Amino acid sequence: MPPDSPAAPRRVVLAFSGGLDTSWCVLHLIGLGAEVVTVTVDTGGLDEAERRRIGERAGELGASRHVLVDARDRVYEDHVSWLIRANARRGGVYPLCVGAERVVQARTVARVAREVCADAVAHGSTGAGNDQIRFDVALRALLPDLPVLTPIRDLQVTRERSAGELRAAGFPVRAETRDYSVNRGLWGTTIGGRETHDPWASPPPSAWPDTVDPDGAPPEGVEVVLGFRAGLPVSLGGEPLAGVPLVERLNHLGAAHGIGRGIHLGDTILGIKGRIAFEAPAAAVLIDAHRELEKLVLTRLQAHHKDQLAAVYGMLLHEGQYFDPVMRDIEAFLASSQRVVEGDARVLLRRGRVEVRGVRSPYSLMDEAVGRYGEDSRLWSGEDARGFARLYGLQGVLAERARRARP
Amino acid sequence: MPPDSPAAPRRVVLAFSGGLDTSWCVLHLIGLGAEVVTVTVDTGGLDEAERRRIGERAGELGASRHVLVDARDRVYEDHVSWLIRANARRGGVYPLCVGAERVVQARTVARVAREVCADAVAHGSTGAGNDQIRFDVALRALLPDLPVLTPIRDLQVTRERSAGELRAAGFPVRAETRDYSVNRGLWGTTIGGRETHDPWASPPPSAWPDTVDPDGAPPEGVEVVLGFRAGLPVSLGGEPLAGVPLVERLNHLGAAHGIGRGIHLGDTILGIKGRIAFEAPAAAVLIDAHRELEKLVLTRLQAHHKDQLAAVYGMLLHEGQYFDPVMRDIEAFLASSQRVVEGDARVLLRRGRVEVRGVRSPYSLMDEAVGRYGEDSRLWSGEDARGFARLYGLQGVLAERARRARP
Amino acid sequence: MPPDSPAAPRRVVLAFSGGLDTSWCVLHLIGLGAEVVTVTVDTGGLDEAERRRIGERAGELGASRHVLVDARDRVYEDHVSWLIRANARRGGVYPLCVGAERVVQARTVARVAREVCADAVAHGSTGAGNDQIRFDVALRALLPDLPVLTPIRDLQVTRERSAGELRAAGFPVRAETRDYSVNRGLWGTTIGGRETHDPWASPPPSAWPDTVDPDGAPPEGVEVVLGFRAGLPVSLGGEPLAGVPLVERLNHLGAAHGIGRGIHLGDTILGIKGRIAFEAPAAAVLIDAHRELEKLVLTRLQAHHKDQLAAVYGMLLHEGQYFDPVMRDIEAFLASSQRVVEGDARVLLRRGRVEVRGVRSPYSLMDEAVGRYGEDSRLWSGEDARGFARLYGLQGVLAERARRARP
Amino acid sequence: MPPDSPAAPRRVVLAFSGGLDTSWCVLHLIGLGAEVVTVTVDTGGLDEAERRRIGERAGELGASRHVLVDARDRVYEDHVSWLIRANARRGGVYPLCVGAERVVQARTVARVAREVCADAVAHGSTGAGNDQIRFDVALRALLPDLPVLTPIRDLQVTRERSAGELRAAGFPVRAETRDYSVNRGLWGTTIGGRETHDPWASPPPSAWPDTVDPDGAPPEGVEVVLGFRAGLPVSLGGEPLAGVPLVERLNHLGAAHGIGRGIHLGDTILGIKGRIAFEAPAAAVLIDAHRELEKLVLTRLQAHHKDQLAAVYGMLLHEGQYFDPVMRDIEAFLASSQRVVEGDARVLLRRGRVEVRGVRSPYSLMDEAVGRYGEDSRLWSGEDARGFARLYGLQGVLAERARRARP
Repeated sequence: MPPDSPAAPRRVVLAFSGGLDTSWCVLHLIGLGAEVVTVTVDTGGLDEAERRRIGERAGELGASRHVLVDARDRVYEDHVSWLIRANARRGGVYPLCVGAERVVQARTVARVAREVCADAVAHGSTGAGNDQIRFDVALRALLPDLPVLTPIRDLQVTRERSAGELRAAGFPVRAETRDYSVNRGLWGTTIGGRETHDPWASPPPSAWPDTVDPDGAPPEGVEVVLGFRAGLPVSLGGEPLAGVPLVERLNHLGAAHGIGRGIHLGDTILGIKGRIAFEAPAAAVLIDAHRELEKLVLTRLQAHHKDQLAAVYGMLLHEGQYFDPVMRDIEAFLASSQRVVEGDARVLLRRGRVEVRGVRSPYSLMDEAVGRYGEDSRLWSGEDARGFARLYGLQGVLAERARRARP
Repeated sequence: MPPDSPAAPRRVVLAFSGGLDTSWCVLHLIGLGAEVVTVTVDTGGLDEAERRRIGERAGELGASRHVLVDARDRVYEDHVSWLIRANARRGGVYPLCVGAERVVQARTVARVAREVCADAVAHGSTGAGNDQIRFDVALRALLPDLPVLTPIRDLQVTRERSAGELRAAGFPVRAETRDYSVNRGLWGTTIGGRETHDPWASPPPSAWPDTVDPDGAPPEGVEVVLGFRAGLPVSLGGEPLAGVPLVERLNHLGAAHGIGRGIHLGDTILGIKGRIAFEAPAAAVLIDAHRELEKLVLTRLQAHHKDQLAAVYGMLLHEGQYFDPVMRDIEAFLASSQRVVEGDARVLLRRGRVEVRGVRSPYSLMDEAVGRYGEDSRLWSGEDARGFARLYGLQGVLAERARRARP
Repeated sequence: MPPDSPAAPRRVVLAFSGGLDTSWCVLHLIGLGAEVVTVTVDTGGLDEAERRRIGERAGELGASRHVLVDARDRVYEDHVSWLIRANARRGGVYPLCVGAERVVQARTVARVAREVCADAVAHGSTGAGNDQIRFDVALRALLPDLPVLTPIRDLQVTRERSAGELRAAGFPVRAETRDYSVNRGLWGTTIGGRETHDPWASPPPSAWPDTVDPDGAPPEGVEVVLGFRAGLPVSLGGEPLAGVPLVERLNHLGAAHGIGRGIHLGDTILGIKGRIAFEAPAAAVLIDAHRELEKLVLTRLQAHHKDQLAAVYGMLLHEGQYFDPVMRDIEAFLASSQRVVEGDARVLLRRGRVEVRGVRSPYSLMDEAVGRYGEDSRLWSGEDARGFARLYGLQGVLAERARRARP
Repeated sequence: MPPDSPAAPRRVVLAFSGGLDTSWCVLHLIGLGAEVVTVTVDTGGLDEAERRRIGERAGELGASRHVLVDARDRVYEDHVSWLIRANARRGGVYPLCVGAERVVQARTVARVAREVCADAVAHGSTGAGNDQIRFDVALRALLPDLPVLTPIRDLQVTRERSAGELRAAGFPVRAETRDYSVNRGLWGTTIGGRETHDPWASPPPSAWPDTVDPDGAPPEGVEVVLGFRAGLPVSLGGEPLAGVPLVERLNHLGAAHGIGRGIHLGDTILGIKGRIAFEAPAAAVLIDAHRELEKLVLTRLQAHHKDQLAAVYGMLLHEGQYFDPVMRDIEAFLASSQRVVEGDARVLLRRGRVEVRGVRSPYSLMDEAVGRYGEDSRLWSGEDARGFARLYGLQGVLAERARRARP
C-alpha cells in the first residue's frame, strides 16, 4: 500500500462539502504545492442555491476545477433500495439515514481522480467519527494505488484553527452559531449536538429542521397507497414513480404529518457510543409498508432468516464494510426473497403515526384462491390436526421427560 | 404414549373458560360417565364478576369441583419477564400477547390432575388454531401418562352444535352477537374477526375494547420514568412495584393515551397465515424503554447476538416449543446479558405515540466516568485512528482488488 | 386439498423400488380396481441388472406400464451441487447422502402422473420415518390436485403381512436374511440395522458394502488434484469431467482407499433420534477440498455467514422443506459466494484419511500478487498496527471497566 | 487512556518467554532506566528444564525479579473447557490451539503489575500478527491505568537487530536454524514456517514435533472410554481425572497413534490470511467424543442453535474479543445446554483416525426407557403420521402453488 503522505502531491482530488474543514483542506493542499480538484456529491441533501454556493466557494479558495455530481439515483440504486428490501433499522428505530452515502461519494471521487490523473485523493474527516473509516476503506478498495490524504485527522486541526486560518487568508467564515450539526440526504436527516450528547436529554421542538411537530400536524392525516414490485416501491397513490422522486415526495408528505422523527443511541465503528436525532419520513413509511406486505407473501422461514441476515447487512453497512463481498452475497439472498413481494399497502399517516391499514398481493399466502381451498378446514381435518399435534414438538416433550426422570 | 380416547375416563380435569366450547365439553364428558373437575386459570384477563360467573357455570353444568387459580404472577415470571428481556415483538410489532399463557394453563391443569388423581385431562380447542398444539405439547410434556381429550376437535363440533345441545340440556346460551373474538391477558388483548380476515381491511374504532382512540387522547400526554434492574422493570414514577401491578398500571395508563394498538399478520403453527388486531399498552412502553436502556449498556456484539437469539426465542415460544430445552439455554443467554441493564428510562406517552426521551445507567458505556477519560479524543489520537482505518476492513479491500484483477 | 382416499382411483402412479412394500402396493392398488403405472427413479444406486429386474417385477405384478428414469444428473444439479457449495455435513459428519433424492423421485412421479392423466399417486412409505414426510410434502407441492395414497402407512402393513400376501398371490419373496437395510445413491450409501439401533454399538467390518477397510487399503494411498470453478468440481487429475461421472469416479477411487465411512446419530423429522452408518467417499473428498479452497478466497465475513446459512440449508433439506422458498434464497446467497471459488485442491487419500495438502486460486487472498504489495509489512506499519490495536476491541474494554467500577 | 510511551517508566512488568524478542526487551527497558520484572506463564508448553532456563536467562539479562506461574489450570478452566463445550473448530478443523492463552498471560502480568506497583507493562509482540492485538486488548481491559509498552512493534525491531544487540551486550544467542516456529500449549501445538506460507505446499514428516506419523502408528490402535459430566471430560478409561491431567494424558496417547495433525488456512485479526500446521491430539479426540455424546442428549433445536453460537464464540475468541461481555452471555448459553451432557463415549484411535464407536447417557433421547414407550410405533399411529405429514411443510407447499399460479 502506498504511503499516505507523499512528500509533494501534484494533483489532489478532494471530497468537498464547502464547510469549514474541507475549505481549510483546499488551502492546506494548495499550500503543499498541489493542484486541487474539488468534488461535491449531491446525495439528496442540497438545493440549487447550496450547489451554486459550494461551487463558488471552491473557485474562491483556489480549486483548479470543481465537479458537482448528482448521485441521488446511485444512492437509491446502490443503498436505499437494499435498505428497503432489508427493512433495515438499526436498534429497531434508525433507518441508516447516513453512512452508505460515503460509498457513493468515494466512488465519485475515485472516478474523477482517474479522469484527471490525480496522484492523491483527500477527505476532510476528523479522527473522531465513523466517516473517516468509511471513506478510507472505500477509497482504498477503489483506488489501490493512490494515497488518501486526511490532513484534518493527521494534524488534529480544530475547528477554531481552521476558521482562524481561513479568515487570516481572507475567506469569510460564518460565525458558528448553530447548536446542531445537520446532515441531510435522500434517506433522511441526522441532527447531532447539545441534548444528543446526554442520553437522558431530549432535543427541543426547535431542533427538528424539516418535520412538523406531530401534535401540530393536520388532525385528519392522510392515507396513501404504495405499490410495490420485486420488493421496491413503484407507485404512490396509483401514480407510477421512479425511486428517487417517490422517496422525495414521501419525505415531503410525511414531514407535513410529523412522520419519521426519532433518536438513536448506537455504536460507532471505533467502539464508543454515539447518539443522534433523525428525521426520515419516507423511510418510516416505506419500511413499515414493505414489511407488512412481506408478511403476506413470505413464508415464516423466509421471514425469519431474512430478518436475521438483514440485521447483519445493516450492521456491516453501518460499519463501513460495504465492499466486503459478503454484502453481495446477502444482497443475492435479499433479491431472491423479493420476487413475490408485489402488491399494495395502504398506510395512514396521522400526527406522527404510521399505520399500515392493509396489504394485498397476487402472491398472497392468505388469499383464498391459493389452491382454491377456501377455508382452513378444507386443508385438513380434525383428525389430521390431532395427528400433527401428537408429533409436533415431540422432541421437547421427550427431553422434558428425560430431564424429570433424573433427580 | 397412552391412547387419547380411553373407553371410559372416570375422572377428567378440564381446562374451563366458561365459554360455549368448554361448557359443551363438561356435558359431553359427563355423558361419557366421567366425573369432571373444571380448572379456570386467570392469566390477567378476568375481573371478579367473571371469575364468579365461571365458577357458577361450572357447578350448574355438573362439574364435581371447580378450581380457580390466579396465575398472573406465574405468567409474569415464566413468560412476560423473558419477553421484556428479549424485547420480543413478532414481525416487528406484535408483543406475543397470547400464546405463552397456554403453558401456564397447562401447568395448572397438570397440577390439579395429579392432586385429584385424574385419569385424563381435556381441553376445548378446535383443530383450526395454534392453541390446540400449545395445549397438547405442554400437557404431554407435563403428564406423560395421561391421555389428553379434545372432543371439540375430534368430533369437529361446531359452535352451532354446541349451542344447540347446551340449550336442549337446559343451559341458556347468550346469543353470539359479538363481531370480534376478544382474548384478554396480562400482556395484552387480541381482537379477531371481520376485518382481520381480510388483509386489505382495517378494524373500525369500535373494535378496540380498552384503549382510547389516539386522536381522542389528552393532547398533553404524560411522561413516566421507569426504573429497571437486571433487565426488568422495578419502579414506575419512582414508586417500587412488583411485575404484575407494574404491568397492570401501565396497561391502564397507556390505554388512556391510546398506546399499544396494532395489527399483526403472521404465521400459525399449522402453516397458514393469520391476522389479528391487538392492544398491549404496557408491552409497547416497556419494550421500547427496555430496548433503549440496553443500547446504553450493552456492547454492539451483545446487542446484535441478543437480537438474533431473541427472534428465535419469540418464534419458538409462539410456535408452542416452550418445553424444548433450547428455550432454557436462550434464557440463560438473555439473563446473562441483563446483568448491567439497570437504570431509568423516561418515556412520553402522547396520542398513541411512545417516545423514549432519555435513559441513564450506572453501567453506561456513554458515561464520561467510565474510565475517567472524558472526551473521545482522550481515548485515541488522530494517528491511532489513522492506523485503525488503514487496517480496518482490509480484507474487503483485498477481496475487491482480487475481484477486479480478473476479467 | 383433496381427500387422500378416493373411493375408487382409476389410474395411480406409484413410486416403485421393486422391494417388498412397493410390490405389495401394486397388488393392493390393483385390488382396489386401479390401473397402476410404476415409476422407478435411478438416483445413482442401481446397476443394469437391478434396473432390469425391477422392470420385470413391475410387469409380473400387473403394472400396466413401467417407467424407468435415470435422474442422476438431476440429483447432481438440484441437490449434490448445492451440498458441495454449502459444505453440508449434518452434525459435522453426515453429508446428507439420502433425503434430497425423494424430491427428485417425487418430481418424476409428478411428471409421469400428468403425462398419463393419473387421478392419484402413491408411495410405499411406512409411518415410521422421514421419507413419508418428504414424499408427501413434495407431491402436495407438485400435484395440488391429486390425492397421495400411502396404503402401507394407512393400513399399518407389516413386512410379514406384505411378504405373506405376495407369496399367497404367487409372487416369490426372497427370505429377508439381510441384517442391514442398505440405501445407495449418487452421494453415498446409508446402512441401518442391528448395531445402529444401539448408540453404544458399532457395526462390524462386514457391514460396509462398498468401501474397503481403511487398514486394508494400499499403504501408499493416492494423491488427486481436483479443479473447481464457481464452487463446483470440474476436473479430476487434470481431466475435465461433468458432475455425475466425477462423483462416481471419486466414489470408486475413495472406496478403494477406505475413505468416507461414518456413523451419524441425528434427529428425524418426527422428533425421535435415529442412527445410521454411511459410506460416502466422493462427498468426503469433495467437501474437504472445496472447504479448504474456500478458505483461500472467501473473506472471514463470507466464511462465517455462509457456514451459518449452510447449516440452516442442510437442516431444512434433511427435514423435507426443499420447496420452501427460503431454500431458493439461501441458494442465491451460496451461488453469489462461489463466484471466486475457482482453482485447485490437492488431496491425499490414504487408509481412510483425507488430507487436503494444498490449494491455489487466481482469486487467492493469500497471493502476493493481490495488489502487488508483497509482504505483510508493506500493507501497514508498526505505528498503524499500534493505532489499530488501541481502538480494536475498545468496547469490550470499556464494558469490562464499567463492570469493575461497580461492586 | 494513558500515553503508551511514558518518558521514563520506573518499574515495568514484562511478559517474558526467554526468546529473542523478549530478551531484547529486557535490555531495552533497562536501558530506558526502568527496573524490569519478568513474568513467564506456563500454559502447558514448558518442561522443567525450559522453566529453569528461562528464569536463569531473565536474571542474566538483569531482571530485578522473575515470576514463573503455572497457569495450566486457568487455561483449562477459562478456555479449554469452553472450547470443549462448544466443540470449537475454526474452519471445521482447527481447535484454536493457541490464542486464548494470551488472555491468561495478560491476567498474570496484570496481577504481578499490581503486586509490584509497576508503572507500565510490556510485551514483545511484533506488529505483524494476532498476538499483539490480543495482548493489548486484554491488558487495557485489566489495567486501565497503565501504559502498555511494545518496543519491538514501535521500533520495528527485526530479529537480526535484536540478535545483534544481544550478542553485542554479551548474551549468547542460538543461531536461528529452526525452519519452523513451534508454539506449544495445553490444547495443542502450532507449527509455522516454510511450506505453511505457500498454500499449495504441505509440510514434510519431519516438521511435526510430537505426533508420530499416522502410517507408522501401531496398526491395532487403541480404544478409550471417556466419561463426561456437565459437558466436560471427567474420566479416561474409567479412571477419574481432573481436566489438565486428562488432556495431557490424551495428548500423549493420541500422539503415539498419529492423532490430531492438521493444517489450517484462516483469517487473522488484521485481515490477511494466515496458514499454520498444528497437532492437537487431545482436542481431536475430546471434541469428537463430546460432539457425538451431545447428539444423543440434545434436541435438534439445541444442537442447531448451539452450533451457530459456538461458531460465533470461536470466531470472537480467535479475534481477541474475550473480554466483550457477549462472551459471558454465550458461555451462559453453552453451560445451560450442557446440563444433560453426561455419559460415556468410546473412541478408537488408530493410525491417525478418530472413530467414536458408541455413546451412552442417562439422559439419552434414544433410550427406550425415556417415557417407557418402547418402540416408535407406540409413540404414534400411522393415522397420526398421516395427519402430521399433511400439515407439516404446508407453508412451503402453499408458496410453491402461489408461485406457479403466476406466469
